[in-house]
Amino acid sequence: MSEGTVILKLGGSVITFKDGFMEANPASLSRLASEIHEAGREKLVLVHGGGSFGHPLAFKYKLHEGFRDYGQLEGFSRVHLAMRKLNRIVVESILAQGLKAVGIQPSSCVITRSGRIERFETTPLEKMLELGITPVLYGDVVPDLERGFSILSGDQIASYLGIRLNAEWIILGTDVDGLYTGDPKRDPEAKLLEKVTLDGLKRIIDEIGESSTLDVTKGMYGKIMELIPAIEKGVKVLIVNAKERDRVLKALRSEKVRGTLILRS
Amino acid sequence: MSEGTVILKLGGSVITFKDGFMEANPASLSRLASEIHEAGREKLVLVHGGGSFGHPLAFKYKLHEGFRDYGQLEGFSRVHLAMRKLNRIVVESILAQGLKAVGIQPSSCVITRSGRIERFETTPLEKMLELGITPVLYGDVVPDLERGFSILSGDQIASYLGIRLNAEWIILGTDVDGLYTGDPKRDPEAKLLEKVTLDGLKRIIDEIGESSTLDVTKGMYGKIMELIPAIEKGVKVLIVNAKERDRVLKALRSEKVRGTLILRS
Repeated sequence: MSEGTVILKLGGSVITFKDGFMEANPASLSRLASEIHEAGREKLVLVHGGGSFGHPLAFKYKLHEGFRDYGQLEGFSRVHLAMRKLNRIVVESILAQGLKAVGIQPSSCVITRSGRIERFETTPLEKMLELGITPVLYGDVVPDLERGFSILSGDQIASYLGIRLNAEWIILGTDVDGLYTGDPKRDPEAKLLEKVTLDGLKRIIDEIGESSTLDVTKGMYGKIMELIPAIEKGVKVLIVNAKERDRVLKALRSEKVRGTLILRS
Repeated sequence: MSEGTVILKLGGSVITFKDGFMEANPASLSRLASEIHEAGREKLVLVHGGGSFGHPLAFKYKLHEGFRDYGQLEGFSRVHLAMRKLNRIVVESILAQGLKAVGIQPSSCVITRSGRIERFETTPLEKMLELGITPVLYGDVVPDLERGFSILSGDQIASYLGIRLNAEWIILGTDVDGLYTGDPKRDPEAKLLEKVTLDGLKRIIDEIGESSTLDVTKGMYGKIMELIPAIEKGVKVLIVNAKERDRVLKALRSEKVRGTLILRS
């Protein structure tokens, strides 16, 4: 039986230095590329965030507000060019391992409506997977039918492709170990959740919603919210700390690894 | 009445040094970007060829033969990265004029069958045009349903978009003045054809087909063959020498200019 498809999302904080300006983290990228190579998955789609390549520029041009004036279109160009630059660095890291990878530009093949994916041409990407190429997508500014343009996050892309490609796994490589019962940086009682069902997750999200102190955790649950549609369709989600050596490798190999596993039931 | 859409194709020989290896021609690009700016067309789609960025690498990996072995996939990556680099340079030239431009990656949104476009997701591109952005496409390696991958020329993209976007004009910016009755480099009697109809063009192509000496001219007619479907749909085609100052400017303004005009009838 052929292996299932895996969508691996690498957070911007893992592959760039967040406090820099358009500064990639080559050591981290090289290690992760080597783990991806070692894992030897047949069908892998890589999606990455923007970190210090995307966020500062997107903020400068107020792209999250959608199209307000012509001047912002410069921002559309600039943010996209910055993300393309990061994408090239990621693709080159993968190629350096002898793997085959081709970047895929979301703003060429996706259109959103009020920030949600409305159309996504995935035929070229699927053909690449079939050939043995790892498509590498990224968070991008994309044309939007209502707002002119909007920021499409890597998380939304990962969730969408998880469903569309009927993926076995979505692996979220982040800079934390997984989901906690509280904010591990403030609360010494906070425990890592090793396994959560969709119902359990929804209960936790409700509780978080009522709290105003758990900012860090909230950010994390925000990412998870994006993945709920995929989890509902039966795609297994695993959150691991991609800054720690071999966590992504083990996740890709479906081996036991520290992290949070989220299942439909 | 709003202006019609124009597809401007710039040949690789115009924007790169053909004898170099991945060497752009910044002076030529900067002049052309300034002509594009001065022309002030509302709806412009730019398509460029590969020149010394595309051809040498594509040849090295034998990409024109389609998918034969896994090693060629490295070529898919490398040729695409090279073309993306040239595309960035073209986009930056346009941005430097204060215009808004976003590159569009054909291998993200096009799939071919035996080298011919089978699907082309143009919604994002059309939305960009509506916003006032100039989409900038390029010849690329794209996934192919029969051959694994194939080389998609800028000429085929220009012709396809001319039809799909119901364009008023396709302007071919090349390194010659237009179509001649013979090879102007060998035949002093060769005359520039200022205006040709589709029937006239087909007659000429038949004649050329029987001759084995007109290599240069043959190459040019090959490009025109690609555009016949668009001409049949009523898109006007104008071939001008983009290496000569103000030819592209005049063409974009629909002013009288040295070149070859091809009309359906």
